[in-house]
Amino acid sequence: MPDAEIIAIGSELLTPQKIDTNSLYLTDQLNALGVEVVRKTVVGDERERLMDTILGAVARSQIIVLTGGLGPTEDDLTRDAVASALGRSMIFHPEICEWLEARFKSFGRTMVEINRRQAYIIEGAEVMPNDRGTAPGQWIAHDKVILMLLPGPPNELKAMFQKQCLPRLEKLLPPQVLRMRLFRVVGMPESDLDQLIAPVYTRYTNPVTTILAVSGEIHVHLRARCSTADEAEALLDEVCAQIEPLLGDRIYSRNGDSLEKVIGVLLHSRHAFLSVAESATGGLLGGRITAVPASSDHFLGGFLTYSDEMKTKLLGVPADLIEQHTAVSEPVARAMAEGAKQRTGSDYALSVTGYAGPDGENVGLMFIGLASPDGCEVRRVQLPGDRERVRVFSTNIALDFLRRKLLAPDGHK
Amino acid sequence: MPDAEIIAIGSELLTPQKIDTNSLYLTDQLNALGVEVVRKTVVGDERERLMDTILGAVARSQIIVLTGGLGPTEDDLTRDAVASALGRSMIFHPEICEWLEARFKSFGRTMVEINRRQAYIIEGAEVMPNDRGTAPGQWIAHDKVILMLLPGPPNELKAMFQKQCLPRLEKLLPPQVLRMRLFRVVGMPESDLDQLIAPVYTRYTNPVTTILAVSGEIHVHLRARCSTADEAEALLDEVCAQIEPLLGDRIYSRNGDSLEKVIGVLLHSRHAFLSVAESATGGLLGGRITAVPASSDHFLGGFLTYSDEMKTKLLGVPADLIEQHTAVSEPVARAMAEGAKQRTGSDYALSVTGYAGPDGENVGLMFIGLASPDGCEVRRVQLPGDRERVRVFSTNIALDFLRRKLLAPDGHK
Repeated sequence: MPDAEIIAIGSELLTPQKIDTNSLYLTDQLNALGVEVVRKTVVGDERERLMDTILGAVARSQIIVLTGGLGPTEDDLTRDAVASALGRSMIFHPEICEWLEARFKSFGRTMVEINRRQAYIIEGAEVMPNDRGTAPGQWIAHDKVILMLLPGPPNELKAMFQKQCLPRLEKLLPPQVLRMRLFRVVGMPESDLDQLIAPVYTRYTNPVTTILAVSGEIHVHLRARCSTADEAEALLDEVCAQIEPLLGDRIYSRNGDSLEKVIGVLLHSRHAFLSVAESATGGLLGGRITAVPASSDHFLGGFLTYSDEMKTKLLGVPADLIEQHTAVSEPVARAMAEGAKQRTGSDYALSVTGYAGPDGENVGLMFIGLASPDGCEVRRVQLPGDRERVRVFSTNIALDFLRRKLLAPDGHK
Repeated sequence: MPDAEIIAIGSELLTPQKIDTNSLYLTDQLNALGVEVVRKTVVGDERERLMDTILGAVARSQIIVLTGGLGPTEDDLTRDAVASALGRSMIFHPEICEWLEARFKSFGRTMVEINRRQAYIIEGAEVMPNDRGTAPGQWIAHDKVILMLLPGPPNELKAMFQKQCLPRLEKLLPPQVLRMRLFRVVGMPESDLDQLIAPVYTRYTNPVTTILAVSGEIHVHLRARCSTADEAEALLDEVCAQIEPLLGDRIYSRNGDSLEKVIGVLLHSRHAFLSVAESATGGLLGGRITAVPASSDHFLGGFLTYSDEMKTKLLGVPADLIEQHTAVSEPVARAMAEGAKQRTGSDYALSVTGYAGPDGENVGLMFIGLASPDGCEVRRVQLPGDRERVRVFSTNIALDFLRRKLLAPDGHK
C-alpha cells in the first residue's frame, strides 16, 4: 500500500495563531483507504521553499496531498510551484474562466482580473471542480506519484476530496475493505468512558478503536480492515456486542447523526413541536436546533430572555419569583420552560439559565428546564470550563434531556 | 536574522485525532526574538524518515527545534536519529542517571531499566535540565546550525524553552523587535480587498502583510521587524497610513476585537440596548452577541420565530403580510425588526429572514432588518455557500449593519 504525505501551504499557518487542521480530515480519509500518512509539512507562500518541499515529497512518497495556495492573489503560489517542480507548463483554460465569471455573476458580482489566475491548470493535470468556491483543484499523475492540489478552506477541501479524490483513489488502490462503526455518546466524561470500555477494545488490534472528545460529547470509532466486507462486519459485530451494553442509552447515535438531528427525528416521528427559552446560551441552543435542514418540521421558535425583565415580559416569569430565587434557579428555569411552551403552543419546551462567566461566583452553574405534556422537570448541573465551553455543554445537556424524555415519556430516565 | 524550522516527532501526531500544538507556542516565542518559522514538519517514530528530515533541515535552516521522542521507550528515537544525522556519538552521563533515580524515588517509585536511555547525551551537546519530567533536553551547536531537542509534553517543553533556550538564543541573536498591526474587515470579498491594497503592501518586504479570510470576514496582519520599537512602529505607520484610507469604515477593529465585541462596546457607550428577531439564523445571531462577557449590559434578548405562525404570534407580523410577500421579504424583515424593538423596548433591533437551504429555490437570499431610533431599514443580500455558511455570513452582515448605523446614525453608510 502506498504512503502519503500532506503539505499545507500558507504563511498564515506559520504564525502563532493558526494551525493546519485539514490534515486531520485528510488523514482520516486516507487511513480509511488503508493509506498511512507518514509526514506532514507546513510551508509558507514562498516559491523557493515550496518547490524544495514538493521536490522532496515527490522523491519520497507515492501520494502527495497539497492544500491551500490556490486562491487568486499574488501569494497563491501552489499551482506555479508544482508546475515548476515537475517541469510542466501552465495552460490557460478558457472554459474555467467562463465558469468563474458565471459564478461571480450568480452572486451579483463582477469577476476581477486576478481571478483569471485560477483558470490556469498544470499541463497534464485533471481539473477537479470546486462546488463551494472559486479555486478548482488539480489531480496529477507524475511517474508513479499522485499529486492532489486542493483548496485550503475546509468546506471546499472536504467536498472536493469526497467527490473528486476519493473515487480516483479507490480506483487506484488495491481493494481492501474498511468498515466502520461510530457511537456518539453524551452524558459522561471521556476518561470514565475509556475506563468502561478499554477492557474490551484493548483486546483487539482489528478493529481499531479510537475515542474522541468533541465539544462535550464523545465519539467512539471502530474501524475494521479485512479482505471482505463480511469479515469486517463480523469483527465489528463481535466487538460492538460487548461495548454497546456497557454504554447503554448514553449512545445517542449510531449513524453519525448529531444530537440536534436525533431530537429532530424523534420529535418529527411523534408529530411534536419544540420551543426554547434561552438565557445564558443566548441563542446557541436554537442555533443548533435549526442547523438541521427542515427543522421547521419540529421547531417553532423561542425566546432569548437575556435580561431579567425579558424573562418577565416575554415569558411571563413572575418578577417576584426572580427576586426571591434569583434568575439562576430551579423555579425560574421551570417558569421559563412553561412560559415558552404556553406562549408558542409547542408540545415541548427547553429552557436554560445559568452563570456562563467569566466573572462572578458559581460560574458553570446551570439549570435546564424541560416542559412536556407530562409536566415540567428541571436539571441542575455544575459545568467546568470557560464561558464558551459552559455555554456549548449546556446545549448538549438540554438536548440530551429532551432526547431521554422523548425515548421514555413515562419518566424513567 | 536566522530562520527556524520546527520538527515534531511522534506517530500519534500523524493520526486523525492528534495535532502538534507545541509549534504554536514555539512560533510565538521565536517570532518575539525576530526569528521567523519557515517550515514545520511532523514525522513519525521511524528512524529512516526521522534522519532524512533532520538532514534536510540542517542543510536548510539555522535554527532547528525538535519536539518529542525523548522518552524512555523503544519508539523514542530523537536522540539516536540526531546523533546519527550529525555523525556524533552518544555518551552516557552517570550524573543524569543518578538524578533520574532520585527523581523516581521522590515520586515513591523505582526507576526501571529503560529509563537509563534518557541519560544518553549527544557528543558535544549541552544538557538542558527538565524541571517537570524525566527527559532532559539537549542544545547542540553544529557548524552554524543550532539544534534544540525538547520534550513533547507542553508543560515540560514550555518550562525548558523559557529557562534554557530563551537565554541561550538571546545571547546568540542580534537584538530585534517585532511589532504587529491587525485590521479586521467585514463587508468585502478577500479578492476585492487584495486588489485594493496589494498595490501598497507588495512594495514592502518589511512589514510583511498577510490576508486571511475567516468565517466571512478578513484579517489583514502586518508585522514589522526592526532593531528598535520606534523604527518598527514608524514602518507600520507608514504602510498603515496608505492602507487604512483604502479600507475606510470596512475596518471594524484594530485591536483584534470581534465584531460582536465591537458592537457591544458601541452600544454600551451610547447606553443603548439591542434585541433580535431571528428566523433563518434560529439563534446564531443572539448566540454570537452573548458570546461576549457582560453582554447583558447592551443586549436584552429576542425572538426565534422560525415558523410563520411564530412571526405573527411573538412579533405581531400581520399574517396577511406574510401571505402577500412570503416570510422571506423586505416587509416581513421590517415588521420583525419593528416587532422585536417594540416588544422588548430596546433601542435597536436586528431581524434576519431568508432561505438557508439546502433545498428549495433562492438559497442564500436573506433580508436583514434594522430598527433604530431613526426608523427601520432593510438590506437584501444573496449569499453564496451551504446552509452553515449562509447562516454565519448572515450574522456578519447583520452585526455590520448595526455597527455602521451606530457609527453614522444620521444615515450615510
